[in-house]
Amino acid sequence: MTAQPPIPELVAAGAAQVPATAVVRGGRLVNVVSAEVYEADVAVYGNTVVALGDVSAHTGPDTEIVDAGGRHLVPGLFDGHQHIECSKLSITSAAKMLVPLGTTNVVSGLDQILVVAGLAGAEAFLRESQATPLRVLWGAPCKTPYTLPTSTVGHYFGPDDHRAAQSWPECVGVWETVREFVTTGDPDVLAAMEIARQNRLPVLGCAPMATGADLTSYACGGIRLDHESYDSHECLEKLRNGMYVVIRESSFAHFLTENIRLVLEHAPGAARRVSFCTDDVVASDVLDRGHLDNMVRMAVDAGVDPMTAVQMATINGAEAYRVDHIVGSISPGRYADICFVEDLDDFRVSMVMAGGQVVARDGEMAIDLEPPSRDGLLTGPFPMAPAAAGDFTVPTGLPDGPVEVLAIEVTEQIFVRKRRDVVLQASAGRVEPDIGNDVALVSVVERYGKNSNRPTAFIAGFGIRSGALATSSAPDDNNIVVIGASPEDMATAVNHLATHGGGQVVVDGGRVVEFLPLPIGGIVSDLDPADMLAEEEKLDRAAKALGCTVDWPFMYLFFLPITSIPDYAITDVGTVDVAAMDTFDPVLGPAAA
Amino acid sequence: MTAQPPIPELVAAGAAQVPATAVVRGGRLVNVVSAEVYEADVAVYGNTVVALGDVSAHTGPDTEIVDAGGRHLVPGLFDGHQHIECSKLSITSAAKMLVPLGTTNVVSGLDQILVVAGLAGAEAFLRESQATPLRVLWGAPCKTPYTLPTSTVGHYFGPDDHRAAQSWPECVGVWETVREFVTTGDPDVLAAMEIARQNRLPVLGCAPMATGADLTSYACGGIRLDHESYDSHECLEKLRNGMYVVIRESSFAHFLTENIRLVLEHAPGAARRVSFCTDDVVASDVLDRGHLDNMVRMAVDAGVDPMTAVQMATINGAEAYRVDHIVGSISPGRYADICFVEDLDDFRVSMVMAGGQVVARDGEMAIDLEPPSRDGLLTGPFPMAPAAAGDFTVPTGLPDGPVEVLAIEVTEQIFVRKRRDVVLQASAGRVEPDIGNDVALVSVVERYGKNSNRPTAFIAGFGIRSGALATSSAPDDNNIVVIGASPEDMATAVNHLATHGGGQVVVDGGRVVEFLPLPIGGIVSDLDPADMLAEEEKLDRAAKALGCTVDWPFMYLFFLPITSIPDYAITDVGTVDVAAMDTFDPVLGPAAA
Repeated sequence: MTAQPPIPELVAAGAAQVPATAVVRGGRLVNVVSAEVYEADVAVYGNTVVALGDVSAHTGPDTEIVDAGGRHLVPGLFDGHQHIECSKLSITSAAKMLVPLGTTNVVSGLDQILVVAGLAGAEAFLRESQATPLRVLWGAPCKTPYTLPTSTVGHYFGPDDHRAAQSWPECVGVWETVREFVTTGDPDVLAAMEIARQNRLPVLGCAPMATGADLTSYACGGIRLDHESYDSHECLEKLRNGMYVVIRESSFAHFLTENIRLVLEHAPGAARRVSFCTDDVVASDVLDRGHLDNMVRMAVDAGVDPMTAVQMATINGAEAYRVDHIVGSISPGRYADICFVEDLDDFRVSMVMAGGQVVARDGEMAIDLEPPSRDGLLTGPFPMAPAAAGDFTVPTGLPDGPVEVLAIEVTEQIFVRKRRDVVLQASAGRVEPDIGNDVALVSVVERYGKNSNRPTAFIAGFGIRSGALATSSAPDDNNIVVIGASPEDMATAVNHLATHGGGQVVVDGGRVVEFLPLPIGGIVSDLDPADMLAEEEKLDRAAKALGCTVDWPFMYLFFLPITSIPDYAITDVGTVDVAAMDTFDPVLGPAAA
Repeated sequence: MTAQPPIPELVAAGAAQVPATAVVRGGRLVNVVSAEVYEADVAVYGNTVVALGDVSAHTGPDTEIVDAGGRHLVPGLFDGHQHIECSKLSITSAAKMLVPLGTTNVVSGLDQILVVAGLAGAEAFLRESQATPLRVLWGAPCKTPYTLPTSTVGHYFGPDDHRAAQSWPECVGVWETVREFVTTGDPDVLAAMEIARQNRLPVLGCAPMATGADLTSYACGGIRLDHESYDSHECLEKLRNGMYVVIRESSFAHFLTENIRLVLEHAPGAARRVSFCTDDVVASDVLDRGHLDNMVRMAVDAGVDPMTAVQMATINGAEAYRVDHIVGSISPGRYADICFVEDLDDFRVSMVMAGGQVVARDGEMAIDLEPPSRDGLLTGPFPMAPAAAGDFTVPTGLPDGPVEVLAIEVTEQIFVRKRRDVVLQASAGRVEPDIGNDVALVSVVERYGKNSNRPTAFIAGFGIRSGALATSSAPDDNNIVVIGASPEDMATAVNHLATHGGGQVVVDGGRVVEFLPLPIGGIVSDLDPADMLAEEEKLDRAAKALGCTVDWPFMYLFFLPITSIPDYAITDVGTVDVAAMDTFDPVLGPAAA
């Protein structure tokens, strides 16, 4: 977040005692505060709006005149919850993807870089954002990793970090405050909440499918909002319990059409409490459907009036996150972020001003954005012991013969993993996969050199018939997730990522078939979004050539260690029963005769 | 503000793991968050709401059952801006007046006690409020006194105080941030604003009749809201500039009917940005018309739908002041303040729960409220030199004969003071009043013993024909304001107040005719509201017996030193030309022959 001019300077600029640096002329102001649309020019001083209406007194000889050409002037769009790193794009690259679509504000926990590189990593990302038109508002994660049980990370983010970093100007609250942590009294999360109270910061929630007493007790903890509702009735219950509702439409979880029913059917007077977020997005989806602009279009298509839909994408989020004094409206004192939009009924952003500068036109950046030079803090090989094929075996104390095994079963939904009981062969103290019956190996390799955890289990229904694929971008801990038909190829894949400092890789027959380097923290890259899209397609194509049948093979790997996705997960501490919040041995016992 | 239970306790209570302390049964919940009215019970733990709806699981053997009898359950009402001391009631007495009407939250600067006794005075008042059902949310005044030029006070409230006290849990921001201080760059006020930024606290405005560049430049300073608009067009301009609008209906300034036109005519979609305050109220008005409840009735009468009107009196204010996480709605985690209301169309509060306890019924307190014992910090005689009749003369260097004098002219409006040029007689170096032509003496006597300022000037149209009246409750500095026909009676009145530690007095012929002691800081009393009303009537009657023709003689004295009321004021540093923000000599020169 770039600093705004000092107050006396802004006051002088507001009084036209110093000329505006830029004036936007000939636009129709979408005033989301007064809920009006009217003709008004906008005077900007530095990165800040200083006057609206007739601003002729603000125009000096050096004032840049921006012609709106009769278009609507809409505040820069506000994404209330996004794991930016999920896109595998660096902050600079993410800005190139999001800003031309009108998104200038993103609330993000930066949790992936935090677990890799700690506060220094988050600080580097926030500094990087200052050189881009994408304003990153940082939610300090309640704790990371969010895994239950806790998995191994480069840096555990806890109360000491909260004490150090909640005072950062970018910090907007405690982020992704998982319900179970609150209702079970996790001491570190409670400490973070108490620190936030002292800092007058809100606590931002994470409570999928919470209803009844689960929800009530969570709300009693002072949770301000939630973005996780699975249907509009869940939204209504959260609303009635005093929470702001943030509707999510991610690349993988499509909730807008369902959850917008909250204001269309259930509580039409409560639209002010509803805002938008995208949570997890990837280039292929954003470059196709759009981002917040797409959510506005979807809401309007569903029947929301355009002013209300625009408010949901701007001021409502800014209010929910308590940052409406700096973003969310085109008003004196706020950052000068303006989307130029022809038609509010078919919301397409044709030009973007961010921080007082025209930065994008016709869906393309209009300024050059260079990523910062990357230093050793965030780059370099992983400090882990090399993997060997023997690591990727499932040991057993059972005698040779058929054994009953719980395999993690792939379903049609990326966010649901079920159980499939299979019979495999034990031989010489290990259980063999059964590629012919689509039961492959899966492992998570601890990559920070803290231990040599690399538990291995079975995955059913993934389709892989040979080779292996692996990713080091894989929250919450960003260890290396690897799935394979061949332990040798799994080791090759893991070691390739480790020596190259991270990425995503497809290996077959001992050979690297495709490799996407993610050299920044092992999680993101400075590739342009379109290039990232091309790389992702190549990787998925290569994975499918190995037999993978899921739609997004690498996103599947990406989400596998997340222990809040039912019913099973795997992290470096083992295979996890999500409901039990504990690890277990997937080898259940000898198979019935 | 009383502390709420620790989070783990609230979470347990929300989950019905510990029983509720009270349950409200059989009410219709006015859910101002979802903008719905529906049948729902309310479970309370300690002073906090923990569950809504079917709360039978929360009922234990010791749970108090409160029968709502089908009435509406409305959140405790929220007054966004009130100088509580203006009522001349102590916090305890003010609670007795306001709480039975449903007002449980008041944002107040406590500026009158601050200038008298500094932070210790404000702290004592906040501590006192904790023993009452009236929650005082404290706005730290931008600086006090607000007078221009600065008058003499017991304690100047400046940046050091802000650094010390903005961290108090009751502090909600910088208060009464006068436009001129911001736009002229008053360094202490700018410092207070910067401290607030670091503390993530909003800056609350004070910008009467600000429009155009004056308003724009002020808004650029980051001012969140304003309560001073004189008409609905001024409201609209502030709204369009991104500010929250707080509509004021005080005992002396009646703006609701005009300013509610903002949402009825100008910007119907912006009701969420509109809330209520009463600024300055006295018992005679509140016991007659009501308080926030009256504002709800007035808004409904004007055409606002009841839900919206209730929101304006509750959640909208809580959001504007950024305290919606603790007050403004009946939701889990918020203070359990509930107004029981039969009919939303004729909004009458028949019972009040505050902090989880039924505290008022049928307009009367249902609990005993005892004021704290008053110690020497806030009581005792004023440390000033006694006054003498000779102090209340207007000196002149002009020779004996007729002189031209600027007298402060009383108008029909208490908040407008004009100029009347009169010819008076100079004699032996002093200018004599002309009681026959209704030109009397007025003075402000510095009462803190810091100097012996007691400048004297003339007031025309007040009607006084003999005697004197004086008050030590008189913001911004609470020096002694005295008006008289007789310098001797003026001295008697002033000395009576000084030796008795403050109050309001009528003196005639050397005799005290009426005296209302205000022993707490010289500004407020522990009288019950009805008794205060009776005392005020006696004082005003006695003043009128001396000839006073204004409606509220003592309120007229009260507001005389406020230098933001056009066109003239008087403080202990002299007669003030409000527009010029400077003192002047009311003796203009020799009269034309």
